[in-house]
Amino acid sequence: MDIVVQKYGGSSVADVEKIKYVANKIKNKVNKKYKVVVIVSAMGKTTDNLIKLAKEISEKPHPRELDMLLTTGEQISVALLSMALNDLNVKTKSLNAFQAGIFTTGDFNNARIQKFKIGKILKLLDIYDVLVITGFQGITEEGDYTTLGRGGSDTSAVAIAAALDAKCEIYSDFSGIFTFDPKIYPNAKKIKYITYDEMLEMSSLGAKVLHSRAVEVAKKYNITIYCASTFSDEEGTYVVTDNIENPVVTGMSVMENQTQVTITNLPFNHAIIYNIFDKIAQKGFNVDMISIININNKLNVSFTIIEEEMEHFDKYLKEALVEFNDSQITYEHGYAKVSVVGIGMKTEKGVASRFFKALEDIPLRMVTTSEIKISCLLEKKYLDKATKSLLKEFEL
Amino acid sequence: MDIVVQKYGGSSVADVEKIKYVANKIKNKVNKKYKVVVIVSAMGKTTDNLIKLAKEISEKPHPRELDMLLTTGEQISVALLSMALNDLNVKTKSLNAFQAGIFTTGDFNNARIQKFKIGKILKLLDIYDVLVITGFQGITEEGDYTTLGRGGSDTSAVAIAAALDAKCEIYSDFSGIFTFDPKIYPNAKKIKYITYDEMLEMSSLGAKVLHSRAVEVAKKYNITIYCASTFSDEEGTYVVTDNIENPVVTGMSVMENQTQVTITNLPFNHAIIYNIFDKIAQKGFNVDMISIININNKLNVSFTIIEEEMEHFDKYLKEALVEFNDSQITYEHGYAKVSVVGIGMKTEKGVASRFFKALEDIPLRMVTTSEIKISCLLEKKYLDKATKSLLKEFEL
Repeated sequence: MDIVVQKYGGSSVADVEKIKYVANKIKNKVNKKYKVVVIVSAMGKTTDNLIKLAKEISEKPHPRELDMLLTTGEQISVALLSMALNDLNVKTKSLNAFQAGIFTTGDFNNARIQKFKIGKILKLLDIYDVLVITGFQGITEEGDYTTLGRGGSDTSAVAIAAALDAKCEIYSDFSGIFTFDPKIYPNAKKIKYITYDEMLEMSSLGAKVLHSRAVEVAKKYNITIYCASTFSDEEGTYVVTDNIENPVVTGMSVMENQTQVTITNLPFNHAIIYNIFDKIAQKGFNVDMISIININNKLNVSFTIIEEEMEHFDKYLKEALVEFNDSQITYEHGYAKVSVVGIGMKTEKGVASRFFKALEDIPLRMVTTSEIKISCLLEKKYLDKATKSLLKEFEL
Repeated sequence: MDIVVQKYGGSSVADVEKIKYVANKIKNKVNKKYKVVVIVSAMGKTTDNLIKLAKEISEKPHPRELDMLLTTGEQISVALLSMALNDLNVKTKSLNAFQAGIFTTGDFNNARIQKFKIGKILKLLDIYDVLVITGFQGITEEGDYTTLGRGGSDTSAVAIAAALDAKCEIYSDFSGIFTFDPKIYPNAKKIKYITYDEMLEMSSLGAKVLHSRAVEVAKKYNITIYCASTFSDEEGTYVVTDNIENPVVTGMSVMENQTQVTITNLPFNHAIIYNIFDKIAQKGFNVDMISIININNKLNVSFTIIEEEMEHFDKYLKEALVEFNDSQITYEHGYAKVSVVGIGMKTEKGVASRFFKALEDIPLRMVTTSEIKISCLLEKKYLDKATKSLLKEFEL
């Protein structure tokens, strides 16, 4: 039994016509003798609209009830897609999280998949050619609905591909992964192969094609992900273990609306720093570009957060710093982060110097590096110049 | 533990403000030390809109997938109501058919409830003051969603009240059961007590307050149903075993758009008649006012159906009559059925003669009677005159 997992995002099933198109696309795969497990997101803006409705009922909707609400979105789309497939005489059945047995942790709104009822799914695949399963959702052992957080349908797809040891195809509006956002830079090239690590850096830097947790799962279970466009047959991008093309720099990404947070005058004790970041992480904030400098036996810490997350951040940070009366916090807004990513950096020397040379006229506020990434923080007014210069330098 | 079951219809939870109002109403009951099991329908026109969406996908949506789709409607409303209750500090949890263990037959779109996981529900009532449960839906032993047919939330409420041996309160736009439709006849009186049998006749005659299957279940398990308005504190109507007020005629109802079907020249064999009606019933048609007359050793059968059901009816009737070449079918449209219902007819004599006297100037096409009901079929132009005359005669 050749099984393939296909995932269709919300914009691919946004209306009746698109659902029928997707049904035909799935049928083509069935005609090629595949058993297809299809993971579907909620139609178009359904999830956003449900969240809006919940916010009208309650300023802070009960997390368990919010998931009870949100899971209806995918149930609607799997039912409709399954109706469309039935009309094409495809033997199919839709399954929600209860029916597919998608068990997760109990972290409402941000759960993690733990297991599937694979025995049941395999038994159903003996009878049906296509199973249409709700993405983004799961249930706890106690039978409460959970959701996996934004982009969670990607994770659903990769996780079930891992459990079935199948290939995973992710279909969306994007025809693949590009060296840089083609909306900003139309000459950006499509990448044919990208490694999990590169993809992880790219997604955490805002590349919207694949959710980073999905890539983590793919890496862990060595599942090849194929990303392509729902509505064209153009070849897409493969996310794999090794990058056979092995360019020095695979891609570039930009995140705007960065705030630089600086804490000065902390005691010289790195355990304190760990403690502060741990508290911030527990509140769900994503910090990046962390730099720590020791000046006169005091620690100074700088990092970035996304401006939209500022609202409650200051309160939580002050709570985390309550014991340190001498410390001071400053916020500077309106920065952009530019990063280049490439597995080749591990072996190729001189990437950093080419990076700095390309940006030699631009004042850089911060620079951080990982094994396969260099990021810098700069004022927004230099963003255009910086990206053009880097695209040229690394032939993206 | 004093448990009460409350059911709120779709128009009672049609928008955010109404959901918040209902949450407050439930909280009042909790303040009176009740544990409340709340059954909720889908918001406003949700079910209609979902059916419309399904019809856009498929002319004849797959029944199993249609139920998969429709059950999302109630899941949305229970989640939102539970959020609103949480905000009022009521200890509550919402449950769908999987979570409440509402097991039904496998008749998609028209299933019947078989059992609840009462042990689980009682255990949850030890922890929570309110359980908000999806009406209208169930699951099969195999874990497929089913729905109970239109008005099924009433049945959900009465069935769970029966399983918990609790009182059942049905809240809707209607402030109770009236002697006649108050929209047509503003002087109609509200009935304080009505028996199950009277209510069954009234609902099968089109009274919209209570679904007849719900009344059947209430009668079987002797559950008192209280019908009242969601948005007022006016006293409603109790549906009970015995009508202590015991009027001769409790109420009247009218169904328009009746078609009279007449089949002539059938062989003199009543088994044939049974067979024909059985085939028609299997196709889901509701026939009423059946009269059978023997003329010259041939059977002539007359009955009524609702005009809207005509579309496919003729085809099925011809199939049922295929062996009887001599038989002839005629349809006559545009009639109205007027019925009076009252448990008192069983004992009180002369009700029929009062009925005919009130209608003496009106040509009656057909008349049928049961122990507690008299119905007649008449031309639409006489409807107004007939109802006024009957309302006066029986002091409704």
